Amino acid sequence: MEIRIGIAKANKYAVAECGDSFEVAERPRGGISAILADGQGSGKAAKQTSSLVVNRAASLIAEGVRDGAVARTVHDYLYAMKDGRVSSTLTILSADYDAQTLLFSRNSNCPVLVKTEFGITVYDEDVPSIGVHKYMKPLMNQVPLEVGTILVSYTDGIQAAGRKRGNAVDHGRILRLLEDNGPGDVEFIAENILEYALTLDDYRPGDDMTVVVMGVSDRDSTHRIQRFSVSFPY
Amino acid sequence: MEIRIGIAKANKYAVAECGDSFEVAERPRGGISAILADGQGSGKAAKQTSSLVVNRAASLIAEGVRDGAVARTVHDYLYAMKDGRVSSTLTILSADYDAQTLLFSRNSNCPVLVKTEFGITVYDEDVPSIGVHKYMKPLMNQVPLEVGTILVSYTDGIQAAGRKRGNAVDHGRILRLLEDNGPGDVEFIAENILEYALTLDDYRPGDDMTVVVMGVSDRDSTHRIQRFSVSFPY
Repeated sequence: MEIRIGIAKANKYAVAECGDSFEVAERPRGGISAILADGQGSGKAAKQTSSLVVNRAASLIAEGVRDGAVARTVHDYLYAMKDGRVSSTLTILSADYDAQTLLFSRNSNCPVLVKTEFGITVYDEDVPSIGVHKYMKPLMNQVPLEVGTILVSYTDGIQAAGRKRGNAVDHGRILRLLEDNGPGDVEFIAENILEYALTLDDYRPGDDMTVVVMGVSDRDSTHRIQRFSVSFPY
Repeated sequence: MEIRIGIAKANKYAVAECGDSFEVAERPRGGISAILADGQGSGKAAKQTSSLVVNRAASLIAEGVRDGAVARTVHDYLYAMKDGRVSSTLTILSADYDAQTLLFSRNSNCPVLVKTEFGITVYDEDVPSIGVHKYMKPLMNQVPLEVGTILVSYTDGIQAAGRKRGNAVDHGRILRLLEDNGPGDVEFIAENILEYALTLDDYRPGDDMTVVVMGVSDRDSTHRIQRFSVSFPY
């Protein structure tokens, strides 16, 4: 079995700093987590917020803290540090080998899409962002860790793409993309969703855009080689 | 300009936990860093050590701490926590946009190889690992942030590959690989060095093996899309 993660990200048009941040952390009891945050606003302040959120979450995951406690801890921290005045979304997608589940935690207005052998489910119940309410809980769900499963999430810039130009995201298109592709295609799925959103915004994104895709595929080699690659344009 | 990072990693033969850890962190003043650590020994204890080292280093980098202070802080922390009894290597490769340099910090018996337009330089001066000496300093070097530059580093499992079988790494082969490839080929370079080391060990690695390659290439698209992908075999 092999967990694959593909992430594609674009900045808001003409803004140097991206208010979305992500991080990937290895789980000490086995497995890997992808963490995605969209800080309130845009530019440097939003970047600092989301960067603080994902870094803190990644450290806690790597220390073995359970995902629900990670979301609560990071919320409390942000709430205390910024006096309840700065919000951030927080989505954690985890492949947990110990529990043999794919676990996902949402504090975001954006959904998590889950493709299993039984079809695609969209998890989009209302849940507040972190940082601004005295009490908050993450919405947590899990599915079995099985080959073929794909999890997708993204930030507001994807959700709202095209809105200022009278366009709207056709969610059916994203679902078809998921139907037509497998867990080995996570990079393609992430880039395709990002490209679609960029097109709706005429390649001048109205907000920071990030897509995260996690897939469970068969291992393509007998040797357990872990691979990791980054393209970071300047 | 685009910073590319390729990482390839294999566990010691028949050992579930890998004592090497790496992390990639975005620098708040612009740029990106790759952090590599090889914890003393192998198995779970080594993994915990190296994981603690790279997580702490990544958090500090993401908070804007300068690389030299990061290495010192992580050393002091490990030295205090483990009472000076547990060592770890620590190598940080940074593309620092603010200073317009490629900066690298070594506390490792393994070298950093640097390919620039003037040729390849091997930085392999002796420097202690972190965690075991009361006083320690990282060895730091920098080269200008220029398109075409490639940095390579790896852990002990690569350096010592084949030794138990009477083979030895032909460093000339690694240098030729660097000569023949460009900064867009970081993934290929990382995988090729790993595959070479695996071959010397008859695909039963005597130690954990990790290769990190960072390259500065021209941007291949007018749109600044950041990409990130992981394959994490189970």
